[in-house]
Amino acid sequence: MTQVEWFDDLQVGMRFKTGDLQITASDIKRFAAEFDPQPMHLDEDAAAKTLFKGLAASGWHTAAIAMKLAVQSRPFGPHPLIGMGVDGLRWTAPVRPGDVLHLDGEIVSLTPSSTKPHGSVVVKWTMYNQNTEPVYTFTPITIIPRRLPS
Amino acid sequence: MTQVEWFDDLQVGMRFKTGDLQITASDIKRFAAEFDPQPMHLDEDAAAKTLFKGLAASGWHTAAIAMKLAVQSRPFGPHPLIGMGVDGLRWTAPVRPGDVLHLDGEIVSLTPSSTKPHGSVVVKWTMYNQNTEPVYTFTPITIIPRRLPS
Repeated sequence: MTQVEWFDDLQVGMRFKTGDLQITASDIKRFAAEFDPQPMHLDEDAAAKTLFKGLAASGWHTAAIAMKLAVQSRPFGPHPLIGMGVDGLRWTAPVRPGDVLHLDGEIVSLTPSSTKPHGSVVVKWTMYNQNTEPVYTFTPITIIPRRLPS
Repeated sequence: MTQVEWFDDLQVGMRFKTGDLQITASDIKRFAAEFDPQPMHLDEDAAAKTLFKGLAASGWHTAAIAMKLAVQSRPFGPHPLIGMGVDGLRWTAPVRPGDVLHLDGEIVSLTPSSTKPHGSVVVKWTMYNQNTEPVYTFTPITIIPRRLPS
């Protein structure tokens, strides 16, 4: 994968790829019990009767896993991933127990600040499962420092 | 708060209000260790040296708490909250240990399906802390069934 340290090194179209993470039924139920206590995320039998027709991860659990994968991949080297905001969260297929998930990212815009020594980077990330089916997309806006003049 | 059961009962401008949830330093660190392992979310001393100048919740933790508050408030009665997608996530102030959080929501658009017995509801939710400072906004799109003809 690409790994760069400064805004100045980035280009539109640059791609990133993260490692993999496997999600379990236990993970799905534990997250849901704390943050999204609805039948399709909590219990196999109850989930079978919903439109998901089986246990599926909370969309916010999927979003949190995406953050983990992005952070671990260090797309901008030592600079933290601090989102100013995120647009276009879309859950395109259920995330199921046992799924193995990863993200591909592509820089879609770069805007240098006119007043500060940084720029904003917009990356469109797509999460895929082990069948290369897209399950989730999101497009965060991140601030990355410019290289200091030498 | 307003609580209604069917798409047909909803109106643009209708408002919702959730209960409160208090977040602790322990909650912040535990979520971060699992999903967003960056210094500003993991450890007070390390966080003091970041631009947050102290421990702050991961934005995805804030997002998950918002889902919990929304689910518990049952804005659409027995119908589940199933997001087709979410736009406009913006974190507008840090969420700190001890903060007491709640959401206010307002329906911003209603679109009946032309082919199916449901409609899409767009609610703009804003999370406030105990000082009525807005800390987070998000705008999910939810599908709610229409009342069956009698």
